[in-house]
Amino acid sequence: MADLKILETFPNPAPHRDFIIAHTHHEFTSMCPMTGHPDFATITVRYVADKTCVELKSLKLYFHAYRNEGIFFEGATNKICDDLGKVLKPRSLTIIADFKARGGFSSVVTADYKAAPVKKSSKKASR
Amino acid sequence: MADLKILETFPNPAPHRDFIIAHTHHEFTSMCPMTGHPDFATITVRYVADKTCVELKSLKLYFHAYRNEGIFFEGATNKICDDLGKVLKPRSLTIIADFKARGGFSSVVTADYKAAPVKKSSKKASR
Amino acid sequence: MADLKILETFPNPAPHRDFIIAHTHHEFTSMCPMTGHPDFATITVRYVADKTCVELKSLKLYFHAYRNEGIFFEGATNKICDDLGKVLKPRSLTIIADFKARGGFSSVVTADYKAAPVKKSSKKASR
Amino acid sequence: MADLKILETFPNPAPHRDFIIAHTHHEFTSMCPMTGHPDFATITVRYVADKTCVELKSLKLYFHAYRNEGIFFEGATNKICDDLGKVLKPRSLTIIADFKARGGFSSVVTADYKAAPVKKSSKKASR
Amino acid sequence: MADLKILETFPNPAPHRDFIIAHTHHEFTSMCPMTGHPDFATITVRYVADKTCVELKSLKLYFHAYRNEGIFFEGATNKICDDLGKVLKPRSLTIIADFKARGGFSSVVTADYKAAPVKKSSKKASR
Amino acid sequence: MADLKILETFPNPAPHRDFIIAHTHHEFTSMCPMTGHPDFATITVRYVADKTCVELKSLKLYFHAYRNEGIFFEGATNKICDDLGKVLKPRSLTIIADFKARGGFSSVVTADYKAAPVKKSSKKASR
Amino acid sequence: MADLKILETFPNPAPHRDFIIAHTHHEFTSMCPMTGHPDFATITVRYVADKTCVELKSLKLYFHAYRNEGIFFEGATNKICDDLGKVLKPRSLTIIADFKARGGFSSVVTADYKAAPVKKSSKKASR
Amino acid sequence: MADLKILETFPNPAPHRDFIIAHTHHEFTSMCPMTGHPDFATITVRYVADKTCVELKSLKLYFHAYRNEGIFFEGATNKICDDLGKVLKPRSLTIIADFKARGGFSSVVTADYKAAPVKKSSKKASR
Amino acid sequence: MADLKILETFPNPAPHRDFIIAHTHHEFTSMCPMTGHPDFATITVRYVADKTCVELKSLKLYFHAYRNEGIFFEGATNKICDDLGKVLKPRSLTIIADFKARGGFSSVVTADYKAAPVKKSSKKASR
Amino acid sequence: MADLKILETFPNPAPHRDFIIAHTHHEFTSMCPMTGHPDFATITVRYVADKTCVELKSLKLYFHAYRNEGIFFEGATNKICDDLGKVLKPRSLTIIADFKARGGFSSVVTADYKAAPVKKSSKKASR
Repeated sequence: MADLKILETFPNPAPHRDFIIAHTHHEFTSMCPMTGHPDFATITVRYVADKTCVELKSLKLYFHAYRNEGIFFEGATNKICDDLGKVLKPRSLTIIADFKARGGFSSVVTADYKAAPVKKSSKKASR
Repeated sequence: MADLKILETFPNPAPHRDFIIAHTHHEFTSMCPMTGHPDFATITVRYVADKTCVELKSLKLYFHAYRNEGIFFEGATNKICDDLGKVLKPRSLTIIADFKARGGFSSVVTADYKAAPVKKSSKKASR
Repeated sequence: MADLKILETFPNPAPHRDFIIAHTHHEFTSMCPMTGHPDFATITVRYVADKTCVELKSLKLYFHAYRNEGIFFEGATNKICDDLGKVLKPRSLTIIADFKARGGFSSVVTADYKAAPVKKSSKKASR
Repeated sequence: MADLKILETFPNPAPHRDFIIAHTHHEFTSMCPMTGHPDFATITVRYVADKTCVELKSLKLYFHAYRNEGIFFEGATNKICDDLGKVLKPRSLTIIADFKARGGFSSVVTADYKAAPVKKSSKKASR
Repeated sequence: MADLKILETFPNPAPHRDFIIAHTHHEFTSMCPMTGHPDFATITVRYVADKTCVELKSLKLYFHAYRNEGIFFEGATNKICDDLGKVLKPRSLTIIADFKARGGFSSVVTADYKAAPVKKSSKKASR
Repeated sequence: MADLKILETFPNPAPHRDFIIAHTHHEFTSMCPMTGHPDFATITVRYVADKTCVELKSLKLYFHAYRNEGIFFEGATNKICDDLGKVLKPRSLTIIADFKARGGFSSVVTADYKAAPVKKSSKKASR
Repeated sequence: MADLKILETFPNPAPHRDFIIAHTHHEFTSMCPMTGHPDFATITVRYVADKTCVELKSLKLYFHAYRNEGIFFEGATNKICDDLGKVLKPRSLTIIADFKARGGFSSVVTADYKAAPVKKSSKKASR
Repeated sequence: MADLKILETFPNPAPHRDFIIAHTHHEFTSMCPMTGHPDFATITVRYVADKTCVELKSLKLYFHAYRNEGIFFEGATNKICDDLGKVLKPRSLTIIADFKARGGFSSVVTADYKAAPVKKSSKKASR
Repeated sequence: MADLKILETFPNPAPHRDFIIAHTHHEFTSMCPMTGHPDFATITVRYVADKTCVELKSLKLYFHAYRNEGIFFEGATNKICDDLGKVLKPRSLTIIADFKARGGFSSVVTADYKAAPVKKSSKKASR
Repeated sequence: MADLKILETFPNPAPHRDFIIAHTHHEFTSMCPMTGHPDFATITVRYVADKTCVELKSLKLYFHAYRNEGIFFEGATNKICDDLGKVLKPRSLTIIADFKARGGFSSVVTADYKAAPVKKSSKKASR
């Protein structure tokens, strides 16, 4: 089970500067909870660190923990966003999950971490 | 016949956040109502869900229903936009239909769902 | 001779919405008026229709009419923009003409239709 | 020696409209003034004409004149920008010079023509 | 050891103009301080010069000096940004370091030089 | 129903020479007889004509006739090979059917027309 | 556990002809028995059927059965070759397993099924 | 009208050696004699010269002469092969004509010049 | 120093079959003995094992040992071929070393291991 | 003037083995003797050394010597083949010169060095 406790951090080496770190994992795989078929995705974690950065090997193990987990595209992307948001408390964070073609479809889900939840349910989406 | 009743939904798993879902169907095909020749397109549905998300298998069946239907590029794109707008009532929605080359031409039609119709007929297009 | 009378139209199927139609012709060819050599280009017509849309087969015949016409890159692009502007009276219109390499050069000419001519000759170009 | 007198012009066929002309030369070559080794680049001239356009064959001869000239990347790009600015007095003009890999490096130099020189030496660069 | 004293400069040939210089080094390699394995990256230095430009051969030697140095992705990118900022005092400067895939991950770190450090630790990142 | 009677021919314009004609159809689609899902393929007909050549428009109509037919990959490829073999009686003929990815698989089936059936069931395949 | 009993067959629809079937699975994944890390490969099964063909859905399930199995590249490729050889008794069969980059290496293992084992251990490899 | 008299030659500079010359024309265009629509192709002339080589500018003019000529794919390829064979009397000659997609089809026609015509009409094609 | 003692082996899992193993190392780097500049290459080891296979991690360490070694392209390729030939005594072995562009040149060196040295110095090369 | 005296050699490090060396020069340029326009090519020198190998820096200088020389495609390729043949006396040697597009044409000239001249003028070319 993918648990945010797997994630480890190290201190931001340049906290005086807003710089962007983007880690792309090319080998994400999970299981479809409906059909039991494997899903494959490329997942990018793009963030501006505040006090801590995510340690790359622990991020790999965190992603490996999804291997036999049944989870939908939309759910996985939001869980990764929530988990990294809680652990890193970053100045900004975006998760881009690009799922490979299945049944003639490919899908990309993109979620931005925000410090506080959005109140208005009908506001215009930022693209 | 492509009917919006084919489309099924499930509750948005992260309604507190404006996140983007983009499903790309690589195998759309319909018939030209003039010549009877088949048309082929790649269609992307990109939206920010409000209360519900579209279920992917039902979206596939909805697109398959165009297989033997005679419909123009511009008409198909707007009908898909209208149907998904009615079913999802999304915070935002864009349909991008990329039709393959025919007679030396390829065509891309892009439509944005808006909650209310546009009044002024000569306003500047947003690009 | 390429004449705007070749162009035919049909009523905009979704006039309540500003949606973008982009037709790309991959097989445009004309003659250089200086050297008599053939030129080749890919031409994109991107517009937001107001009351009418351009019929695709008539657009193909209109482009074929340039086959043996001697005309410069800049002139052809502006003539196409003017002709389609007159026939469609669109909410917006852009012509992008991408001429293939000749003598070590390739060229792209881009023209926007505007309802009224621009008065000031030294204003800043919009990019 | 590359001299702006090589450049010829013709009247802008559509002065009522701000349209963009982009000529890309794929075969620019000059000599490194330090090592005497040849350099190779792809150079794009992108401009909005005011009263005159540059004649393409004269532009080719102007670029050929750099073949055996010793000049640095930064110097060549700015000289081309200055020469075309003086000859065309365009509404806007950008030179993009993309030099091929040499010693593990490739370089792109981009210069914008401005009618008047910039006064403040520490202003923020426009990207 | 990579030392900023390796870097040499020459006077900006066009200080009256804000023009962009982008040098991309395709053969950067350093060592992971944890595992001792080699890392490989493509590094772009993009800047607007004020009084001086960086001399390309000295920049190559500066990058070669990382060959056997143990340093993390985030640390290397920020050190390069700091070193070039001190030597060039540019009008603007961005370092983009694109590290090749290792263990299923690739990473891009992007840092902007700013004359003065950022005070507020929770401000929104510029993307 | 795809019937070889749809196929029309014209006399070989150069029967004194063994020359190769290869027609590639990029828009073949049929139905899976098991699941009812659409299949998509690119099909190449490569042959050396003897007395007749296949007329291209009739070949297109012949392929369109598979649109709503339930047929397996292996069966469709062999039927096309048999039908064209009977109609053209070519000096040689190969069908290459490249089926798009479905469920993580793509498939290519290649069949050579032979004037007489092969007798020995265990002979070595020619590659 | 990947067991050849998962594999199902159907009768060869064209046993009178040596035709080639090539199924490529883009989503093979197994586990490294040394490190426990996941491996990813694209595997092609190319064969000339004798009496039976492999049913595609059963082949997918057979490959899925490797998901959590610890097995080396060389072992997996030879086991797949042996299993399909036993089940299909094909006229010819080749397995091409293309493993993705790991630690700076990618690997391709290619095995040909032969009816009888090779006796001489030092014979020249066929390429 | 494309006439072999347009073709000019120059003496083979290395007749003691069988070396291969391959000229590829990227801008061939002719007219379909059935529909009057333009066809576009890339044509390669690959030959081993005996006493003479074809002069490149005359070859360009020869190809331009097809611009408004109604001719089928198969006929054009064989005529080019015959004309160049008569003019050059080469040690060997192959014409490869790659016609762009039209109505979902692309076509490649390949013809080899032979000094003497082939007698047997059912011989096996060389691939 | 790159020493063949770094290389480790494991028993061939399928000695009854001539199967091909190809390992491609994308991150080979050494030093030019003339200039001291780093060289970069992609190296493929393709072999048919007899009694033993090379263990991949030891092969990586063996390649890493070239990092600071001064050696020419031709010498490095032949040394790798000799070392792997001695350690594996394979049924066949080919080394393909693809060195990246330097000074406008890229180079590929290909060496085949043979059990016995070639006697005749002027024999025709096998391609 | 390109003179074979520019070419330097070093002893073959592995004369006991027929191994292939291929150097590709991406920046060859010469002048058309007819029009005075520059030509650009990528030239590959592929050979099996006998007693000596060509030193790479001298090969670069030899190619640079063509920069302002007026020479046809066919002549340049054969001269390079002759010069390297005389200097290296290789076991085999092939020159492949790939000239960039000019006037809608690109050209590839391929010449094989042979120890003795070919006698029969009408023999079949080896492809």
